[in-house]
Amino acid sequence: MISVLLADILRGAEVESRHYGVFVVADTAGRVVLSGGNAERAIFPRSAVKALQALPLLLSGAADRFGLSDAELALACASHAGSPLHVETASAMLARAGRDETCLECGAHWPVSLSAARALAAAGRSPGALHNNCSGKHAGFVCTAIHAGLDPRCYVGADHPVMRDVTAAMSAVTGEDLARRTPAIDGCSIPTYAIPVRRLAVGFARFGTSTGMPDGFAEAAARLRQAVAANPLMLAGKDRFDTVVTEALGARAFVKLGAEGVYCGALPEQGLGFALKCDDGNARAAEAATAVLLRRFLGPNEVLDRLANPILTNWNGLAVGEIRGQLPSNRPASGK
Amino acid sequence: MISVLLADILRGAEVESRHYGVFVVADTAGRVVLSGGNAERAIFPRSAVKALQALPLLLSGAADRFGLSDAELALACASHAGSPLHVETASAMLARAGRDETCLECGAHWPVSLSAARALAAAGRSPGALHNNCSGKHAGFVCTAIHAGLDPRCYVGADHPVMRDVTAAMSAVTGEDLARRTPAIDGCSIPTYAIPVRRLAVGFARFGTSTGMPDGFAEAAARLRQAVAANPLMLAGKDRFDTVVTEALGARAFVKLGAEGVYCGALPEQGLGFALKCDDGNARAAEAATAVLLRRFLGPNEVLDRLANPILTNWNGLAVGEIRGQLPSNRPASGK
Repeated sequence: MISVLLADILRGAEVESRHYGVFVVADTAGRVVLSGGNAERAIFPRSAVKALQALPLLLSGAADRFGLSDAELALACASHAGSPLHVETASAMLARAGRDETCLECGAHWPVSLSAARALAAAGRSPGALHNNCSGKHAGFVCTAIHAGLDPRCYVGADHPVMRDVTAAMSAVTGEDLARRTPAIDGCSIPTYAIPVRRLAVGFARFGTSTGMPDGFAEAAARLRQAVAANPLMLAGKDRFDTVVTEALGARAFVKLGAEGVYCGALPEQGLGFALKCDDGNARAAEAATAVLLRRFLGPNEVLDRLANPILTNWNGLAVGEIRGQLPSNRPASGK
Repeated sequence: MISVLLADILRGAEVESRHYGVFVVADTAGRVVLSGGNAERAIFPRSAVKALQALPLLLSGAADRFGLSDAELALACASHAGSPLHVETASAMLARAGRDETCLECGAHWPVSLSAARALAAAGRSPGALHNNCSGKHAGFVCTAIHAGLDPRCYVGADHPVMRDVTAAMSAVTGEDLARRTPAIDGCSIPTYAIPVRRLAVGFARFGTSTGMPDGFAEAAARLRQAVAANPLMLAGKDRFDTVVTEALGARAFVKLGAEGVYCGALPEQGLGFALKCDDGNARAAEAATAVLLRRFLGPNEVLDRLANPILTNWNGLAVGEIRGQLPSNRPASGK
């Protein structure tokens, strides 16, 4: 793996741990504006492409048919914290299509938010599929299936018509033909495909600017971006990176994490998209480096400063170290 | 950093993430038997040296004076899960010295065991210092202070007589003079010193064989090893790596994790010690590589096979990938 330093973790004045990775910032025409590491390396984007996977929900007409709200559309793009707000919103999406959580095939896990998990335990309850961080995305898949008159069962399978549309949308936006590829399986059981980092960056440049995509995609992408910008709490949860960035920047940036240290996003005003993967799958490094990336293109910002360089405290609240996000770039790609 | 591959994380048939690091296996005389990466790199061993930090508890006579049990001595070496068993044992240690948890200066955190944390929340309670994974070690520090007639307050400070003895014990065993070094601060607020990986490996060879150490250390080390081997559940907790390995191997191996991807340990029958650090601080890679290391020296073992190569499942229980522990070594050190 040809990689660059994404973050140093300092304890006192010494580097305790270190994270490497790869990133690409590209425009809608496919030009690499900035990159570090091997831009052609294929990575599993995981949940970082949820917004692309939500496009068929709008393209199919399902979102209009069922009158999905902006908050619900934002949740379809989310890796949420499993707080009551998220659970209720996912449930409401299913209800609009006349269904309930028994249709969800994402599996159950305790809320990502530890306080939400403890509150659930304190109430003597166990988590269900609605608490799964992907339940909004899956509720969107169920809505899409019902709108098309399809049996939603097995919608997570690569051969289900809904999932074929999802894969086709990702292919159309990224330019990577996924139809004949054998996928791996994601945490929530849907297919996940390894895609070159550069392709992901270009795809998000298109998604972020509503350009260079097939008919209908421009409107769908714009609506999803607007829905997320207006509902930052839906995208992740209180004090979580994606929510904090979206609260600070609104429609100026779209950011979405994926499992195993991935970030994808867009800078609509600059006409750019980006993708980033921490080699070791670590989120703290991916977040800090993404904050550095956003700051480089959007200029100084107090929130981004803090996210690029968080102070680490111990159980007594003592400052014991810090995370230093980095973004050392390769030389500009030739032909630029 | 000069490092070697410690683990590949596969999703389907493809490498999704990858972990590098450094490791050394050495004998009591300081000879490197096997290593990967730069053996002289200084790392923060964090909680991996808790057994060395527990030596003054025995050397001072405090353990005998207060009649500490083997289970309590094991807890002094532990990063425990915060289960009721651990909390009660730490509390009993303090009671033997006529003290209680108000003496602990480690800070409070929710139990490492998620089920223990949920049970606490379900009972409407919040965690205290006894739930801190380091509470057994800290209870040992308090016992040592009381036995010496010292005020235990500020025992976490590098200048407190108890902590000076702890630092001196680590210096004596590892051969690294720490007395005049400026420490960083650990998660539980005690000092932590960066020590070369090779020195740590040699130190644990000595600790594991009770040889090459100052007067009295041999008996203290033997007693701690025996206490841990007889109480694997105290060392970490149910289904956790250190406990599972100790349940399987007993006194044939001593293993202890440290935060940020560290393992230290000993193979007493082989006369060897080891230390390992995952560069990015990840525990899954440190565990898998440590299992490979143990298997290489102890021979085939079903438990180690599973720990070296865990299958990854998703929220529906589907197998989606695996962890492949690795241990590519440098050529044997010259002079061996």
